[in-house]
Amino acid sequence: MNKQDVLNAFQFRHACKDFDTSRKIRDEDFEYILELGRLSPSSFGFEPWLFLVVQSPELRERLKEHTWGGQEQIPHSSHMVVFLARKAGTLRYDKNYPKYIMTEVQHLPEDAIELRGQFVERFQKNDFKLLEKENGLFDWACRQIYIALGNMMSGAAMIGIDSCPMEGFNQDKVNAVLAEDFGIDTDEFGVAVMCAFGYRVAEPRQKTRQPLDKVVRWYE
Amino acid sequence: MNKQDVLNAFQFRHACKDFDTSRKIRDEDFEYILELGRLSPSSFGFEPWLFLVVQSPELRERLKEHTWGGQEQIPHSSHMVVFLARKAGTLRYDKNYPKYIMTEVQHLPEDAIELRGQFVERFQKNDFKLLEKENGLFDWACRQIYIALGNMMSGAAMIGIDSCPMEGFNQDKVNAVLAEDFGIDTDEFGVAVMCAFGYRVAEPRQKTRQPLDKVVRWYE
Repeated sequence: MNKQDVLNAFQFRHACKDFDTSRKIRDEDFEYILELGRLSPSSFGFEPWLFLVVQSPELRERLKEHTWGGQEQIPHSSHMVVFLARKAGTLRYDKNYPKYIMTEVQHLPEDAIELRGQFVERFQKNDFKLLEKENGLFDWACRQIYIALGNMMSGAAMIGIDSCPMEGFNQDKVNAVLAEDFGIDTDEFGVAVMCAFGYRVAEPRQKTRQPLDKVVRWYE
Repeated sequence: MNKQDVLNAFQFRHACKDFDTSRKIRDEDFEYILELGRLSPSSFGFEPWLFLVVQSPELRERLKEHTWGGQEQIPHSSHMVVFLARKAGTLRYDKNYPKYIMTEVQHLPEDAIELRGQFVERFQKNDFKLLEKENGLFDWACRQIYIALGNMMSGAAMIGIDSCPMEGFNQDKVNAVLAEDFGIDTDEFGVAVMCAFGYRVAEPRQKTRQPLDKVVRWYE
């Protein structure tokens, strides 16, 4: 692939606030965006995510009530995704979920599962001290979710589709809506972030960033 | 851009453990990878990251001592990046850094800075309750760093460059090394994740993922 094409897509991407309500993303294009999420990497390959595609106007309305950062994007976007992250209830090293991934998804041999399980335990207990912190495992899962989020936004931009990530919501209230209206078990999952996808109405203002020498330091 | 090309790059990417020590990434290719990090989106556009490119074998050795998850990748990769995330010392709504970004980088008018500042305060205090938690702001910054991490790994794969993200290190000890040997102010920044870049020696095993219907739910 051509570097300049990728860079152009990164310049094209912006946090799109105004979506063109007359334009829908084609099914095969949105499937491609979801596929980029599915293929994203995650720590130990645990894929600690669930992507809710919310197309029902009523359900979008329920989310919008608690999302000041999405008042225009939630009703007007073509497609909307709520990104859920796994919590300690399933992601702890001694729960069934890590073992399910290692055996039924990754098809690791028994001795590799044993060894990898030790690494996971060591990592969760010692290195990142995830078990000591309230929501430590959820926060760790959220980081991985942002890899998928970034990949989906970038990949969308590469085919001319706009997006808007949304963090401006009340976490507790959105989780309550997910439990009540979406049938989500909130011991297993919590909301990490949302993202709207669609097509822009107007061109955004010039992209701004710090220059490279402010964000990179070389040690040679 | 072509969807299948992007999907192929996602299939190409894997957590590369064995790097070919005889192959160096060309300067212009690595600059492109850094540029994808720089252009990545972040919450409120705060760019809460610092990318340390560690090419010195001595400094890599210091990091390797505390990074069981990078014993091969740290010495053998062509380029290595330590991703730092900003901490409360600079990222809190009432610190200078957010104001610097809004005025000197984003060039927002005075009234927009005022309004946006209120949103930031509300977000940090209420929505995500970042100020109540120890390391809440750092954890929030880390999420954003993983967007850049994902974009850099995906963008590398698009031009045939391999990568390996690394979380398997002792955070406290790596932060101590950063303070001592890298001149990093650890009140401002902490280590979030590392990533090695280069070229594979051998082909990886088949990629494994849960099927799409396990990770996506539609609400129509």
